[in-house]
Amino acid sequence: MSSLTTTHAPKGLEGIVATTSKICYIDGDAGVLAYRGIDIHELADHSNFEETCYLLWFGKLPTRKELAGLQARLAEERKLDSAIIDLLRNAPRTALPMDVLRTAVSALSFYDPDDKKNDHDANVAKAIRMTSQIAMIVAAYDRIRKGQPVVEPDHSLSHAANFLLLLNGKHPSTTAERALDIALILHADHELNASTFAARVTAATLSDMHSAITSAIGTLKGPLHGGANEAVFRILKAIDAAGADPVDYVRDMLAQKKKVPGFGHRVYHTEDPRATHLRLMSRDLGHSSGQAKWYEMSNKIEQFVKVEKKLNANVDFYSASTYHTLGIDVDLFTPVFAVSRISGWTAHVIEQLDDNRLIRPRADYLGPEYPNRYVPIEQR
Amino acid sequence: MSSLTTTHAPKGLEGIVATTSKICYIDGDAGVLAYRGIDIHELADHSNFEETCYLLWFGKLPTRKELAGLQARLAEERKLDSAIIDLLRNAPRTALPMDVLRTAVSALSFYDPDDKKNDHDANVAKAIRMTSQIAMIVAAYDRIRKGQPVVEPDHSLSHAANFLLLLNGKHPSTTAERALDIALILHADHELNASTFAARVTAATLSDMHSAITSAIGTLKGPLHGGANEAVFRILKAIDAAGADPVDYVRDMLAQKKKVPGFGHRVYHTEDPRATHLRLMSRDLGHSSGQAKWYEMSNKIEQFVKVEKKLNANVDFYSASTYHTLGIDVDLFTPVFAVSRISGWTAHVIEQLDDNRLIRPRADYLGPEYPNRYVPIEQR
Repeated sequence: MSSLTTTHAPKGLEGIVATTSKICYIDGDAGVLAYRGIDIHELADHSNFEETCYLLWFGKLPTRKELAGLQARLAEERKLDSAIIDLLRNAPRTALPMDVLRTAVSALSFYDPDDKKNDHDANVAKAIRMTSQIAMIVAAYDRIRKGQPVVEPDHSLSHAANFLLLLNGKHPSTTAERALDIALILHADHELNASTFAARVTAATLSDMHSAITSAIGTLKGPLHGGANEAVFRILKAIDAAGADPVDYVRDMLAQKKKVPGFGHRVYHTEDPRATHLRLMSRDLGHSSGQAKWYEMSNKIEQFVKVEKKLNANVDFYSASTYHTLGIDVDLFTPVFAVSRISGWTAHVIEQLDDNRLIRPRADYLGPEYPNRYVPIEQR
Repeated sequence: MSSLTTTHAPKGLEGIVATTSKICYIDGDAGVLAYRGIDIHELADHSNFEETCYLLWFGKLPTRKELAGLQARLAEERKLDSAIIDLLRNAPRTALPMDVLRTAVSALSFYDPDDKKNDHDANVAKAIRMTSQIAMIVAAYDRIRKGQPVVEPDHSLSHAANFLLLLNGKHPSTTAERALDIALILHADHELNASTFAARVTAATLSDMHSAITSAIGTLKGPLHGGANEAVFRILKAIDAAGADPVDYVRDMLAQKKKVPGFGHRVYHTEDPRATHLRLMSRDLGHSSGQAKWYEMSNKIEQFVKVEKKLNANVDFYSASTYHTLGIDVDLFTPVFAVSRISGWTAHVIEQLDDNRLIRPRADYLGPEYPNRYVPIEQR
């Protein structure tokens, strides 16, 4: 490789600015996260998921009419081709929900009316459509694998309430709806997180939206990304099952050099602003549902890890107890992350394609020195 | 974003060294491509695809026994779960082969015996398995969409010959087998090309091999990457159909500021060493099959673009006429690229996971200034 024209980046591209973006502002030192400049705390307090989608996709808060228009389109798109339902039914019951989601979203392209188009407007249409479809796929597969009937969507409900209806077969309480709605707002975007970056790398070859989102889902699956909230809850459950003291349990993990999931973040050097909201939600939902133990356990672990390792809880830590209290199965935590993040992924793909350049870095070759001769097989 | 700790990269991460790697050596100024230090010209002249796979996965050329062992394992893995064949049968006939391949490879995870494992050995096993499976999927879907029966694999054949058998329903000539074998060698790896980079970004969250390869396929699909060879042939076909002069046609394209696919490469500043071989193959296959017109047309275009735009033909330019002469449909050109590149993708995923770090760069925020206030809807 010619070294004159290359720059060596830190491992994992840490601290490398790979693109410009008008979507998400993060100040990792101050603990600030903002979509289109609007602080996540204001959005969590006052907005809803549909309005947040509008903000991410169109770059501004909607008027009443614009919001109603988007809500109507999201509701209209609450439909899945019967072949997608068949695909979910045909998947083995042992298939991981994230693997099924990745496969079903890839298959959505076969039936997308805009499949052969890759322009801005077609991709906005796909963003809206896929936001509705992903929520339906996650809920439908959970019903199917449990031998329960797939639930019909209710077009009059919010995105959050409709998802909980499809998942649980009954209308959610106002508290549960609002809790999920806030969780969806908080998870909607996070700049160039690994799954969003993967989506942009895919889109940058001028590939299509479904390819980009399929890449994002496969990337989110990993335990160093979306999979962390599942890992957090598996620890809470193990502590509960063993009747162990949470602090003792985590101290043991640290003594065994194990990483405690849900702590630390490459970008934040202070509290992850999303954790602030999720901590409160975990507490309030726990108390109101009589399941405070998950919050209390989490809180003890958080205090201990903060003192012991100087690490702050991140978005995944309190989403675990929050989602559990909402009645969501542990292996759906990461799919529920995708139900929200589809909004940010699609916004980033649209932005990438509006001013595209192929994303193709270099590698520093450290293998056998060139030229390494081809030795005929009889001489090896 | 704190600017103290970040470095701004050129757009598309051009010239940024994102990782170290022992797999592929490229000297873009000298026009050198080497796998594990062995020049691609030596491999194309003396090696075969199975041996090249061994080299990529295990870092050295195999002994006779090691090569026989790998060939036996690749042959054993020439099988697809009937559910995968059903998935191919159920896809609409209009579905793009790359969309079907992406979906079917994602679904392979449901049936993979090592699906819940992500260690080095499990991933080598998946690399071997997926190399056999991807060739079968590409061929089977092409048969199915044409209403032809799916062909049974022949375990005694080479990877290239078996693929051509599955595709065409008859044993290939020695010339055709060797031509495809060389094409598979030439396309096997190319350092951090966009699809391989996408695979590594996905794997780096500690997600699994199937997720990573699914990302790679979706990324390869784009016309700025694997999709370029399809675009090249569509132009050759349009010229042929119009009875146009190839040089006039391309001069017109340039006058209309259209990009001519198959020319130029971010990494090479001289001839792409793969083009050297593919040019010869295109010529020889063309002459021996009595279809020299595709080569001759290509050659005229190459000469013209080289003088006019100072651009060299890349790997995609002569693979178009080569694949067509081998009887491969134009919308299978990119899937055939995947049939080869699966070897390099899997080698890179294994390398990534052997010394992993999350790949997560930053973005430079250029959106509305923070804090951009949340204005209540009634005031908008």
